[in-house]
Amino acid sequence: MKRDLYTADHEAFRQVVREFVAREVTPNLERWDQQRLIDRDVWLAAGKQGILGLTAPEHLGGAGGDYRFRMVVHEELGKAFASSLASSFSLQDDILIPYVVELGTEQQQQRWLPPMIAGELIMAVAMTEPGTGSDLQGIRTSAAKVDGGWVVNGAKTFITSGIQSDVVITVCRTDPGGGPRGFTLLAVERDFAGFTRGRKLDKVGLDAQDTAELFFENVFVPDANVLGEVGGGFAQLKRMLPLERLSIAAWAVGLASAVLADTVEYTKARTAFGQPIIDFQNTRFELAEMTTELNVTRSFIDRAIEAHNAGELSDVDAAQAKWWAAEMQNRVVDRCVQLHGGYGFMLEYPVGRAYRDSRVQKIFGGTNEIMKHIIGRSIAAGRV
Amino acid sequence: MKRDLYTADHEAFRQVVREFVAREVTPNLERWDQQRLIDRDVWLAAGKQGILGLTAPEHLGGAGGDYRFRMVVHEELGKAFASSLASSFSLQDDILIPYVVELGTEQQQQRWLPPMIAGELIMAVAMTEPGTGSDLQGIRTSAAKVDGGWVVNGAKTFITSGIQSDVVITVCRTDPGGGPRGFTLLAVERDFAGFTRGRKLDKVGLDAQDTAELFFENVFVPDANVLGEVGGGFAQLKRMLPLERLSIAAWAVGLASAVLADTVEYTKARTAFGQPIIDFQNTRFELAEMTTELNVTRSFIDRAIEAHNAGELSDVDAAQAKWWAAEMQNRVVDRCVQLHGGYGFMLEYPVGRAYRDSRVQKIFGGTNEIMKHIIGRSIAAGRV
Amino acid sequence: MKRDLYTADHEAFRQVVREFVAREVTPNLERWDQQRLIDRDVWLAAGKQGILGLTAPEHLGGAGGDYRFRMVVHEELGKAFASSLASSFSLQDDILIPYVVELGTEQQQQRWLPPMIAGELIMAVAMTEPGTGSDLQGIRTSAAKVDGGWVVNGAKTFITSGIQSDVVITVCRTDPGGGPRGFTLLAVERDFAGFTRGRKLDKVGLDAQDTAELFFENVFVPDANVLGEVGGGFAQLKRMLPLERLSIAAWAVGLASAVLADTVEYTKARTAFGQPIIDFQNTRFELAEMTTELNVTRSFIDRAIEAHNAGELSDVDAAQAKWWAAEMQNRVVDRCVQLHGGYGFMLEYPVGRAYRDSRVQKIFGGTNEIMKHIIGRSIAAGRV
Amino acid sequence: MKRDLYTADHEAFRQVVREFVAREVTPNLERWDQQRLIDRDVWLAAGKQGILGLTAPEHLGGAGGDYRFRMVVHEELGKAFASSLASSFSLQDDILIPYVVELGTEQQQQRWLPPMIAGELIMAVAMTEPGTGSDLQGIRTSAAKVDGGWVVNGAKTFITSGIQSDVVITVCRTDPGGGPRGFTLLAVERDFAGFTRGRKLDKVGLDAQDTAELFFENVFVPDANVLGEVGGGFAQLKRMLPLERLSIAAWAVGLASAVLADTVEYTKARTAFGQPIIDFQNTRFELAEMTTELNVTRSFIDRAIEAHNAGELSDVDAAQAKWWAAEMQNRVVDRCVQLHGGYGFMLEYPVGRAYRDSRVQKIFGGTNEIMKHIIGRSIAAGRV
Repeated sequence: MKRDLYTADHEAFRQVVREFVAREVTPNLERWDQQRLIDRDVWLAAGKQGILGLTAPEHLGGAGGDYRFRMVVHEELGKAFASSLASSFSLQDDILIPYVVELGTEQQQQRWLPPMIAGELIMAVAMTEPGTGSDLQGIRTSAAKVDGGWVVNGAKTFITSGIQSDVVITVCRTDPGGGPRGFTLLAVERDFAGFTRGRKLDKVGLDAQDTAELFFENVFVPDANVLGEVGGGFAQLKRMLPLERLSIAAWAVGLASAVLADTVEYTKARTAFGQPIIDFQNTRFELAEMTTELNVTRSFIDRAIEAHNAGELSDVDAAQAKWWAAEMQNRVVDRCVQLHGGYGFMLEYPVGRAYRDSRVQKIFGGTNEIMKHIIGRSIAAGRV
Repeated sequence: MKRDLYTADHEAFRQVVREFVAREVTPNLERWDQQRLIDRDVWLAAGKQGILGLTAPEHLGGAGGDYRFRMVVHEELGKAFASSLASSFSLQDDILIPYVVELGTEQQQQRWLPPMIAGELIMAVAMTEPGTGSDLQGIRTSAAKVDGGWVVNGAKTFITSGIQSDVVITVCRTDPGGGPRGFTLLAVERDFAGFTRGRKLDKVGLDAQDTAELFFENVFVPDANVLGEVGGGFAQLKRMLPLERLSIAAWAVGLASAVLADTVEYTKARTAFGQPIIDFQNTRFELAEMTTELNVTRSFIDRAIEAHNAGELSDVDAAQAKWWAAEMQNRVVDRCVQLHGGYGFMLEYPVGRAYRDSRVQKIFGGTNEIMKHIIGRSIAAGRV
Repeated sequence: MKRDLYTADHEAFRQVVREFVAREVTPNLERWDQQRLIDRDVWLAAGKQGILGLTAPEHLGGAGGDYRFRMVVHEELGKAFASSLASSFSLQDDILIPYVVELGTEQQQQRWLPPMIAGELIMAVAMTEPGTGSDLQGIRTSAAKVDGGWVVNGAKTFITSGIQSDVVITVCRTDPGGGPRGFTLLAVERDFAGFTRGRKLDKVGLDAQDTAELFFENVFVPDANVLGEVGGGFAQLKRMLPLERLSIAAWAVGLASAVLADTVEYTKARTAFGQPIIDFQNTRFELAEMTTELNVTRSFIDRAIEAHNAGELSDVDAAQAKWWAAEMQNRVVDRCVQLHGGYGFMLEYPVGRAYRDSRVQKIFGGTNEIMKHIIGRSIAAGRV
Repeated sequence: MKRDLYTADHEAFRQVVREFVAREVTPNLERWDQQRLIDRDVWLAAGKQGILGLTAPEHLGGAGGDYRFRMVVHEELGKAFASSLASSFSLQDDILIPYVVELGTEQQQQRWLPPMIAGELIMAVAMTEPGTGSDLQGIRTSAAKVDGGWVVNGAKTFITSGIQSDVVITVCRTDPGGGPRGFTLLAVERDFAGFTRGRKLDKVGLDAQDTAELFFENVFVPDANVLGEVGGGFAQLKRMLPLERLSIAAWAVGLASAVLADTVEYTKARTAFGQPIIDFQNTRFELAEMTTELNVTRSFIDRAIEAHNAGELSDVDAAQAKWWAAEMQNRVVDRCVQLHGGYGFMLEYPVGRAYRDSRVQKIFGGTNEIMKHIIGRSIAAGRV
């Protein structure tokens, strides 16, 4: 079935992204994985090429586009199997820039958005703490009010772009007795005294994406760096979650498409027992099942993208998109590994890297169990 | 996410169907199952209500609608768990009427379509033979040319509406050496000499739907009853298969939606260990997973309906829709049975009947394996 | 791998069972399904042949055998696809006779065991009530103490052998405030005043097995008919559950083995696209996977049988055996249906009947969810 | 259920292995992973401790034990999550030592076995070639007869212990027209002229296990280094495959047991939403399902070990054990990762490493598809 998601504008943009990927991404991927860090250069190149800030308003320096432009990026980075980079860009474009757009004061927007869109300023968000996963109520990093600002103490972990980020939106408990109204988002900057980075964490995959622990010891954060309302952090985070989850689902489709297409080619080229392995019935059934599952999922995610563009993507919709697509991605990649035989276990083959990089999709952005909890609660309440 | 498939016209028609179902279907369902036959009365009532011939052209007495009207029927019959009736109506509206519309001469159309749309004439199509499943090349029922017509000999099996049908489109081999060009469709009428019905087959489910063996012993069929071209039967059948498969997928979504909605209510009403069973985490996760799977599938089938309406549904698209939706239906119904506990095994509960009725969806209309074969072949040929 | 479960004694007994099945079961199966009741004659024939009371002590008229003799019966009835009969015999031999052996007074044993073993007396056990599934604490059928006995009021449902049983062990609440110590087992006899049978329930499968509702209206039960201790019913039931669950697992292996063997033969005999369907790679992989899953499961159930014989089968062991084997059975039967194509949906094929008969195995004897609850609780308590 | 596999001798040996692991393995694991190579020291330590050559005959310096001693090693290395080491030791003890024992001349046995058992000589076997996976007939590495020996040319890939091995049993085509009778095993030694190692391959997991490409350019191999019969290589390899596959299955059980036990502890210690996560129903069901699946699989593998000890493990038995256990392992580890949430994606947690290390089990030793092919072929031939 013809896909009807895109207009000619999106396809023209795809050409831009494709050239960017060929020039700036593909030649460097292996090196980034080995050095376990993405070069900052690629951020600048992306900024120059207009690949960041895609959905930010034009008057703030963004492209003013809808989420379909982001989907183009997911798809083209997918074709390069650039999971770590896609994840890093997604954090910036799907989470942090929207934070600043939605919650920032005019002054904050002018201070942060232009460099973020130019790729000069990398932002991160620090929610999770050791001992606190999807349950944000367990957050213990605190910010105490002092004259002209706040003093932050605590630790965060699993922070994407933890090492490279220039500004970290840090979720702090500002009112110990305030329950869900007791959290505030504070922007901690690179050179604030008392702010240190821990080691870069060794992960199952996403080798090039830097993930780290952060420590805050009496870090003074000026009032000008409060993002959104004091005490409003929890509600603000919650409001942005659907987009974060949509972005995970979108990447799942982008990467799985690329892995499957690559595997189809592999099974055509590779022979065993005297014939291309695509001519074995088992191979054909595997490819048929995966193609179907991918197409079915894509039709749902395309609809979710349209719903988001229309301002209608609910938290329950996003939860469905996230867990389903993440599972689909992992199933498809696992089966593609198998069709590659021994080569599927080798990192020089994209499918091997994709296998390592994919597993986290079922975990981050809220575990798939949290997604099911959200959906199930809504069913029980008669809202689905 | 809001579903965007329907217009106000479809929703108005839904109201008509809903009333028809409440009046003519629901009160009779159990009786039909027990007598193992659907009353012909319901066909007449459906005809009077304008529920048959939905997509047939207006100048031939049809409603001239698109497939979304049929989807409304699937959904409303689904809510009544009327699998046997839905299957019978689908055969008439999604397969036979399109055959006559597409292939019939003007005279044939005038002879058959008005009574078919009125529910006065039930038509069947006889492809499968004992020993010949999805492999149509194995057909042995033959038609020999004689003066003014053809003489048919052979036997068919698994024929839906086999007992009640007034006209049976019979796939005959008219040229033993003709390969795929050797088949012709002949319309055998109720009272043709030598045409007899075998016993009604006992099935795992779809109790009320009559399925039978048919026997042809020197049955003379006049030339006026050749449907389509002599020798063109195979290609003609093939051309109609995507719609047949779409109809199976559409019913899968219709029934699974109803079963799931019914199960949600059941889990709210039923208590165990002191609380409604919907409050157990396992129940919620089950419902969340099924709701997601259903929504994902529905978005794909809705797109397939639109593609069909636009004349763009390929055989590969339809194959994907069919196998995927049939699997989804069976998975959902099986899990819903489980959530009903002991009541799920009782036929007085709709979910129990749905369980028995659903299994065949993975088999008829071409087994799911045939679907995967079609898709896989297309992938290998570089067409997907 | 050679199976090492049986001795020559068991194999000799298998021959007896095989002849019994050929003579008394196979010729009647279809009729029993159609009349929705098993003839009492087959009980008498089984008694005469020494097929009932297999594990009852010799001094009480039993064969004094171990559970392997019962496994032989499961396997041989499995080969006949006689699910309803197997279920009825299992109720008698694996549940009721052990109840009387374990809990009965000498007088009760002499009154009931000889006719039970002779097939003259069919016993049932009535636990489940409308509104009470696996949660026995919800039982509301009450027995009030009166002079010389008890007066029972209430209703039970889903009672296997509900119509045919001559004696029904009825779980009654004898102490409303007694918690788990408030239940007692009372033997209600066929002709006790106030004891009536409801309708035979229509089920998804197990057509010939009679399942019914029972009603008790001021039924006087003499003290001599109290089975076990007053107030001890709950603990007594609990003690017998592992064997009940083992019997479900054993039947699962017996039936699935037969269905798979039958399907292997079918795929050898049936051709499509010019070759036996067993020569398609998909068929071979399906058969290979099912064969493996069956063998793996059998090795576990064989071990569970040995553990039971040694008096070492825990409730957690039995729970694992039950849910796993029931799932395996349903998966295998479903896949075998699919390999039969259209014939798999026909009741004249054993696989079609097996499909309908198998579903309840995941539900009765404690739903599979209850099994997982039992296992999970034990893991959490550090006992597994 | 009590496991009855082991005797007191095996449990005494377990204590030895446990101490060895604690002293020599656990403290070094992380370093081996980082240096991407296992220290040779641990081989010597294992040799000293009597952990190598467990099933080699005593008169050749082995322990003369049965495979249960090897299973103890799998289990104890499993508890340390030492996948790479286990794989390397397994290659030596389950594949290479049996080769030399079965096929070696007395002189070869005396030359190689003592140092192999002492951990001084690491052996490898080189079958797979670039472009040749499970299909051994595609092997192109050739050995041409010359005076006093053979001259080998070709390349091999995916060779475990490829870098560290001192002797490589190399499968060579010695008779180009000889079909399956055209292969011979030649022992290529470390310092043979023309024998070079390629780079160490980067893999999805098993980081510490060295896997490499090998190149042979006019390598002269003396006649004394022919292992087994000239032309008999294929049949010899085939004969040893069941044990290789059993060893994969045994490791699957060993590792999965350890990962599951570790995860149970994790879910007890970790809290979310105010309670230990083991108290969520979903967690309990997950653990219950995995525990069952593991126990069921273990009972089968234990039986397979006994069959091997008795000389009765067929290629079909081994194929069943291999694919099933490898799938089980991957399912269990994947679910355990999920129960760890974000920590499951961190390599510092054993479950993260286990995830990366496990994937290859479905591929090596013959892909799981090859296993199903072997089983299915045997079913079709009526041998299962």
